[in-house]
Amino acid sequence: MRHIIDLCDLTEKEFSDLYKLVSNIIDRPEGYVDACRGKVLGSLFYEPSTRTNLSFSTAMMRLGGSVVGFSDPNATSASKGETLKDTINMVSSYADMIVMRNPREGAAKVASMYSSVPVINAGDGGHLHPTQTLADMITILRMRGSADDMKIGLCGDLKYGRTVHSLLHFLQRYHNVQFYLIAPDALKLPDYMVKFLKDNNMPFCEVDSIDEVLPELDVLYMTRIQRERFVTAEEYANLEGNYQLTAEKMKRAKKDMLVLHPLPRVDEIAQDVDDDPRAVYFRQARFGMFGRMALLLTLSKLPFERAGHHEIGADPGIRCSNHKCITRSELYVPLHGKVGDRCPYCDAALEMQL
Amino acid sequence: MRHIIDLCDLTEKEFSDLYKLVSNIIDRPEGYVDACRGKVLGSLFYEPSTRTNLSFSTAMMRLGGSVVGFSDPNATSASKGETLKDTINMVSSYADMIVMRNPREGAAKVASMYSSVPVINAGDGGHLHPTQTLADMITILRMRGSADDMKIGLCGDLKYGRTVHSLLHFLQRYHNVQFYLIAPDALKLPDYMVKFLKDNNMPFCEVDSIDEVLPELDVLYMTRIQRERFVTAEEYANLEGNYQLTAEKMKRAKKDMLVLHPLPRVDEIAQDVDDDPRAVYFRQARFGMFGRMALLLTLSKLPFERAGHHEIGADPGIRCSNHKCITRSELYVPLHGKVGDRCPYCDAALEMQL
Amino acid sequence: MRHIIDLCDLTEKEFSDLYKLVSNIIDRPEGYVDACRGKVLGSLFYEPSTRTNLSFSTAMMRLGGSVVGFSDPNATSASKGETLKDTINMVSSYADMIVMRNPREGAAKVASMYSSVPVINAGDGGHLHPTQTLADMITILRMRGSADDMKIGLCGDLKYGRTVHSLLHFLQRYHNVQFYLIAPDALKLPDYMVKFLKDNNMPFCEVDSIDEVLPELDVLYMTRIQRERFVTAEEYANLEGNYQLTAEKMKRAKKDMLVLHPLPRVDEIAQDVDDDPRAVYFRQARFGMFGRMALLLTLSKLPFERAGHHEIGADPGIRCSNHKCITRSELYVPLHGKVGDRCPYCDAALEMQL
Repeated sequence: MRHIIDLCDLTEKEFSDLYKLVSNIIDRPEGYVDACRGKVLGSLFYEPSTRTNLSFSTAMMRLGGSVVGFSDPNATSASKGETLKDTINMVSSYADMIVMRNPREGAAKVASMYSSVPVINAGDGGHLHPTQTLADMITILRMRGSADDMKIGLCGDLKYGRTVHSLLHFLQRYHNVQFYLIAPDALKLPDYMVKFLKDNNMPFCEVDSIDEVLPELDVLYMTRIQRERFVTAEEYANLEGNYQLTAEKMKRAKKDMLVLHPLPRVDEIAQDVDDDPRAVYFRQARFGMFGRMALLLTLSKLPFERAGHHEIGADPGIRCSNHKCITRSELYVPLHGKVGDRCPYCDAALEMQL
Repeated sequence: MRHIIDLCDLTEKEFSDLYKLVSNIIDRPEGYVDACRGKVLGSLFYEPSTRTNLSFSTAMMRLGGSVVGFSDPNATSASKGETLKDTINMVSSYADMIVMRNPREGAAKVASMYSSVPVINAGDGGHLHPTQTLADMITILRMRGSADDMKIGLCGDLKYGRTVHSLLHFLQRYHNVQFYLIAPDALKLPDYMVKFLKDNNMPFCEVDSIDEVLPELDVLYMTRIQRERFVTAEEYANLEGNYQLTAEKMKRAKKDMLVLHPLPRVDEIAQDVDDDPRAVYFRQARFGMFGRMALLLTLSKLPFERAGHHEIGADPGIRCSNHKCITRSELYVPLHGKVGDRCPYCDAALEMQL
Repeated sequence: MRHIIDLCDLTEKEFSDLYKLVSNIIDRPEGYVDACRGKVLGSLFYEPSTRTNLSFSTAMMRLGGSVVGFSDPNATSASKGETLKDTINMVSSYADMIVMRNPREGAAKVASMYSSVPVINAGDGGHLHPTQTLADMITILRMRGSADDMKIGLCGDLKYGRTVHSLLHFLQRYHNVQFYLIAPDALKLPDYMVKFLKDNNMPFCEVDSIDEVLPELDVLYMTRIQRERFVTAEEYANLEGNYQLTAEKMKRAKKDMLVLHPLPRVDEIAQDVDDDPRAVYFRQARFGMFGRMALLLTLSKLPFERAGHHEIGADPGIRCSNHKCITRSELYVPLHGKVGDRCPYCDAALEMQL
């Protein structure tokens, strides 16, 4: 556990230790006010993300540590043409840990290769966002004890929703979980994720509206649907109600069902749901902060050894097929493998360079 | 004293306790370097205000606390269409207190309804700015012992000047204060404020220039005149001298008169006044920081109970007549009353919705 | 040592004490985590500079202190028409020290005149940048013991390169240093700097490419060449290789030569040099942070006496010939002397006002 690029990088033992630490922090936060005293977190937000940024900063400060960095893409040295490698080299010569949000997919992996301190991925484009999954898992575990034997509904944009994919990946570790995939046709779970569920014997069914399955669910994970992803406004208006949660609908849900949402929400959860005790999305945000505290504390105590960047060999004939991949803009990053292999940074397919 | 929306919300006892704490902090600042250790202030500036922002942040840091937030309106989640309610819910799940500046009038009141931690209003449009009034009052009390029996001149833009209105409201608590209102016709004190003075037996006279009354004054409160509020540049040029303070004019003022200004100033106070010991506007800024320290410290120690937002009932037929009112953009905010009543958020008149 | 405007303002004793403190901090950083506890640094960046900004902030935080300020020129009160004098008056009424970056030359000197706390210059236009020179000197002293008897190559833009001029000024204190000035004709060291070298008996020779002198050098100080300063792209392409350092070229250099660079670099140092142990530019950045820690700690402990601004008399007939001088925008700043004298703020020649 040197860097946190993907939550699935943690072994079961590491995650279990982390969760124990989270529980201790939640129960006795005053015991940690000096835990990172004298430590500095470098916070590099190459695109704005108020929520994740504030959560990490608060987490570090509640441990008695400090935060430096930027939250404005225009104020970065990248805008002066500096490579990610040099920026990471610089910041890791100042700070004790780095948290980075970057629109390029695979950027966190690249940062970890050149950093002399631990790097935490706070979102690399549409690729991974491990601390959101951590917040989701803490909420389920803290409020229900386990995710085993749960019926979990995932609703909204299952096609592009990074948080849904990450959560499914992680839930593979639990037993007898049943999934209900609630999405319009245009935003269904992509084939490679469906294959992942099948390969791992994770039972699921796909349905067209919340109403069909609501009374069955133990957890309802809501996500935002971006209207522009529908073909027409009319189509959106027709389907909207199927993927919106209201206080009226909540009457049919189990008494102890949990409603989660990675936030921000727009109108997929009506305001009148907020006062329902089963609506735990704001507590989920708070759990996320405690999860980040545990992560920062754990990393700050581990002996660190620089990863080095020779672990990934170079092959000049190959490039990543993903236009948003970090290897497309940071040209010094080594890349090897053959056509059809997965890119070691963003997980897209490799292709022949033209 | 759960939230600080308006300084007049404080009882006389609460204000007196607060002022005692301010005095202790000024006299013995080293006694407070750990007073808010482990606490985090959420600092939400929806419009830039370097001065107020720095003052609050420094205040929290001098108490040993930390600050997270944003100062750039473009970097906020509001720019992604999030409601104020959700932002406040999120931030209050991270931070121990919130300070907010927002261009919408009544925004601070709305924030307080959804926050699970104390909210301090750092300015809501042209409506209220309680910690500026606190800075003004501390300056007068610290340097003159009381505001009783004072002759106070208020000069400049008395029409739109939010700080002047707030100060007048608060000075209603003192005895035998006489007011001199020094403003051009176009920027005279508005009728409802004149009515306030009369209703509360606060004697005042309106004059056309500083010169007429300068030798009488114990306090001269200067404010900035925005040129664009004059009809013509010529008109401005003609009148400018009447509302500008210079070292030359200061010769006619009392030896212990105080010159206050909420800052920033442009040229209504000439540079050559700065070295006069009676010019206390920079000390006033410093007193403001000590006042904010006392406020943060007091709120951080009080037991907090969530206000809830059911205290204000809803009536769908009514809306606020003020286009800058927070109820115009945050549509879920409940509003009741009848035509002509005061809006519970921004104090403007309610009207029939069309 | 009340303000740090130019590193050459330090006496040899002061610099030697500072360097001793730097060494102590590097060797035993844990001894300083509370050294500035309760102190607040005002960090005023009137133009973005991620690197310098992060370095100063981290330095203050590693001393247990806090940082307030701005890094975005648009968010400053200057954008509302406030004078530098008023901003400095305000910030120095909140903070215990000020660090300022400003595009106007001489701005740091002016800030120091109106500040009631110590001011550190973090770069005033193309004029001075003392803490960069401090980082350079610490790197040489820490890694080679002394700068005496060194052969130092300075490569790249020697005409506009502020860091090169500052370093040359400071190296005048050392004995038997030989300089190799490696620059294209268009970017040669300016005449007044050549005169400085001659006046101080500092031996130098000017050459056309790194290759000519590389095997001789003990230190190679690389700087960035801005392409737009060449007349044509063709000219740039022709000469580029002469001023670029590569792993191939490094084979001919001494085994213990140091490669320094103020960063950010573009392509004047190839990526393949980074892994060479002689490439110390990222360690140099880290040394810079330790240097800033020592500076902040030293200033925070000194008794401070306000400089006052009467030390520089006014003469309305004279103005500075430099269009980027701070006296051109801050019109209240006193200026005296006669035609041909050096401006006391930016060091350019004074001229008759028209």
